[in-house]
Amino acid sequence: MSAPLRLGIAGLGTVGIGVVKIIQNHAELLSARSGRPVQITAICARDRQKNRDADLSDYAWEDCARDLARRDDVDVFVELIGGDEGIAREAIEIALDSGKDVVTANKALLAIHGQALAERAERQGRSLRFEAAVAGGIPVIKTLTESLAGNRISRVMGVMNGTCNYILTRMQSAGLPYEAVFEEARQLGYLEADPTLDVGGIDASHKLAILSAIAFGTQPAFDAVEIEGIERVSIDDINRAADMGYRIKLLGVAQMTARGLEQRMSPCLVPADSPLGQLEGGTNMVVIEGDSVGQIVLRGAGAGEGPTASAVMSDVIEIARGVRLPVFGQPAETLSKAHPARTAVPAAYYMRLTLADKPGALAKIASVLGDAGISIDRMRQYGHAEDTAPVLIVTHKTTPDAIDHAIEALPRTGVITGEPVELRIEEV
Amino acid sequence: MSAPLRLGIAGLGTVGIGVVKIIQNHAELLSARSGRPVQITAICARDRQKNRDADLSDYAWEDCARDLARRDDVDVFVELIGGDEGIAREAIEIALDSGKDVVTANKALLAIHGQALAERAERQGRSLRFEAAVAGGIPVIKTLTESLAGNRISRVMGVMNGTCNYILTRMQSAGLPYEAVFEEARQLGYLEADPTLDVGGIDASHKLAILSAIAFGTQPAFDAVEIEGIERVSIDDINRAADMGYRIKLLGVAQMTARGLEQRMSPCLVPADSPLGQLEGGTNMVVIEGDSVGQIVLRGAGAGEGPTASAVMSDVIEIARGVRLPVFGQPAETLSKAHPARTAVPAAYYMRLTLADKPGALAKIASVLGDAGISIDRMRQYGHAEDTAPVLIVTHKTTPDAIDHAIEALPRTGVITGEPVELRIEEV
Repeated sequence: MSAPLRLGIAGLGTVGIGVVKIIQNHAELLSARSGRPVQITAICARDRQKNRDADLSDYAWEDCARDLARRDDVDVFVELIGGDEGIAREAIEIALDSGKDVVTANKALLAIHGQALAERAERQGRSLRFEAAVAGGIPVIKTLTESLAGNRISRVMGVMNGTCNYILTRMQSAGLPYEAVFEEARQLGYLEADPTLDVGGIDASHKLAILSAIAFGTQPAFDAVEIEGIERVSIDDINRAADMGYRIKLLGVAQMTARGLEQRMSPCLVPADSPLGQLEGGTNMVVIEGDSVGQIVLRGAGAGEGPTASAVMSDVIEIARGVRLPVFGQPAETLSKAHPARTAVPAAYYMRLTLADKPGALAKIASVLGDAGISIDRMRQYGHAEDTAPVLIVTHKTTPDAIDHAIEALPRTGVITGEPVELRIEEV
Repeated sequence: MSAPLRLGIAGLGTVGIGVVKIIQNHAELLSARSGRPVQITAICARDRQKNRDADLSDYAWEDCARDLARRDDVDVFVELIGGDEGIAREAIEIALDSGKDVVTANKALLAIHGQALAERAERQGRSLRFEAAVAGGIPVIKTLTESLAGNRISRVMGVMNGTCNYILTRMQSAGLPYEAVFEEARQLGYLEADPTLDVGGIDASHKLAILSAIAFGTQPAFDAVEIEGIERVSIDDINRAADMGYRIKLLGVAQMTARGLEQRMSPCLVPADSPLGQLEGGTNMVVIEGDSVGQIVLRGAGAGEGPTASAVMSDVIEIARGVRLPVFGQPAETLSKAHPARTAVPAAYYMRLTLADKPGALAKIASVLGDAGISIDRMRQYGHAEDTAPVLIVTHKTTPDAIDHAIEALPRTGVITGEPVELRIEEV
């Protein structure tokens, strides 16, 4: 049996304490599977006095993560602080420069500074691992980097923010408007301190940018993700979509096309009976499509103490076993600069318009869509008490550009009131 | 860039040719991800003249897999012959003894002789990898061995024979009896030469035994799997189960209990709206439950050229990258001998009885169940044209022993005709 692997854990929130518990409770199992004992030597967090649900008395305490990253008795620096700048980034750089391997759950940092950090780690010959950064306990990083390494990946997509999926499914099941469920989620502690990270789609887009890099051999390019959050999703649209056999999900999709790398995070319709459509509550799902493997679907808890700590431990055990891989699956210097492309892959679209009750109104709408080259698959006009009528349209496959043209032209017909709503129907 | 990794491929059926195609079509991608070129140097199969859908002219030909396993210009012996004895086993032993790593898709061999082969490989310091042996393209071996290595696994289950799932879902969708769909499957070429391997549950049980070994740190024990095939599943039961919100699946379940290791492969009812219940056609699904990660669900193609070749390549790339792990996730000599336990974990059960149309018949049935300690959750008696009436019972949670007692006692009441049917309702 080799020498113990010594961890320094920076950040003792939910995930950090989850990691401590696994190491304390499963010493024998970890040692059998890793080929060597896994130990914690030092820890740090902002507040030493805070009451935490674990006995930390055996570990050296550091007040500053930078100092933890410098310690000689630490082999692996486990960064669970978060944030794409400041202390987390600095401490990781110090750890790599002082010859330590790094395990992190920090999606923002990797999505934004992943390239620089990967180059730094590989220059130093160290590991930088981040299974916990994407979709919690779901082993999506390993699946993409290792299991599907023999495939040319055509598309990666997923529901990767449990809070958004909770809000959307709860709106549907309780029949409540967005604002009410958002407030519920806030009170349940499901939202980040800055809720825009969740409902604005930022957090999920960080994850998508990381997956894209591995899938397509490109440098992580978070700023190239087209992002739309769930704030505009109305209970009306959720109900109308359900009537037609769809669910609305905050769906991330990355695909490489002849025009470049499309990365988008947006509320989409998916068939209610598809695995993505059936995903309820805070659960996450990632779908990967490769030329040999076909479609692989991975589902599990995307957050929480246990699942995220499980992912951190997966990385720790790989390091204990002596496994070394390039950060994004191939040497960072060989990752190409992604040529970002605005979404152009055709899809069917869902549109909801509020029609003024005037003669010939529907004909005018149909004519605008026809002029934009959009053909209609299904249309439903709902009964109406007032002098406006909701109209739902599902188009045949068309381009996002055509939809944009139509959305721009529709108000000029003078027969619709309010903003037209348009949502992509993703083929899953 | 390091020296090329040189493969010898034994067996040029669907999967072998799939591997050849990936290596021919993705040379650059494989080299970038592996850190070195991946090449084929030699191949062998039974019939050299057979027309195969690939250009094999660059590779040395061997008539015998043993000779391929001995070649000096082969680093990795890829065994795609199959069979748990004879040439496949001998050739793997020769390859390991001559210092080669081995990649195989041979589930029968690993389920039956996995312990001896793992010890041999580890004695020689070689890798023996088998991602393709279980559930085709689904990365379940890697997920269990690596991603969930920080978890104590409580249960592994899955639908791991696509042919059986095809038959069961096709029976339901077409309303056809077992025999008719079996014949269809045979004509479509979905069945093994010996169809008992599929419909008898043997093939899926091989896979379950392999997963158990990794999940619970025990020596593979195929002979301890309780196996029941799908031959007895009637279209009647499929329809009745559907009426009550269930689907019938050939489900493998392995769990470690205080009494020992339970491993069973049997037709079970699962909720129609669960991920397992929704699995249609030849797709496979594996569900893994760990103490930290909770429940992880993996879904994908369980067979076929591309998916299985993708799994083989995952192992090949790991070897090219220099990754070495114990065969079953911890050194083979530390695997404990599983103490096999007959299923004792309680569950609800579905029962179908054909009741003679006699006064007091139902009371007699209820009394037998009561005496066995079984309480009834739901009961349905169907209308009947003749002098017998089908009765469906869903029990509350009870033990398999209690069910066995009841099944034995029921015919003695004199009020049922035919064999009582009983199927476990697995909590998923």
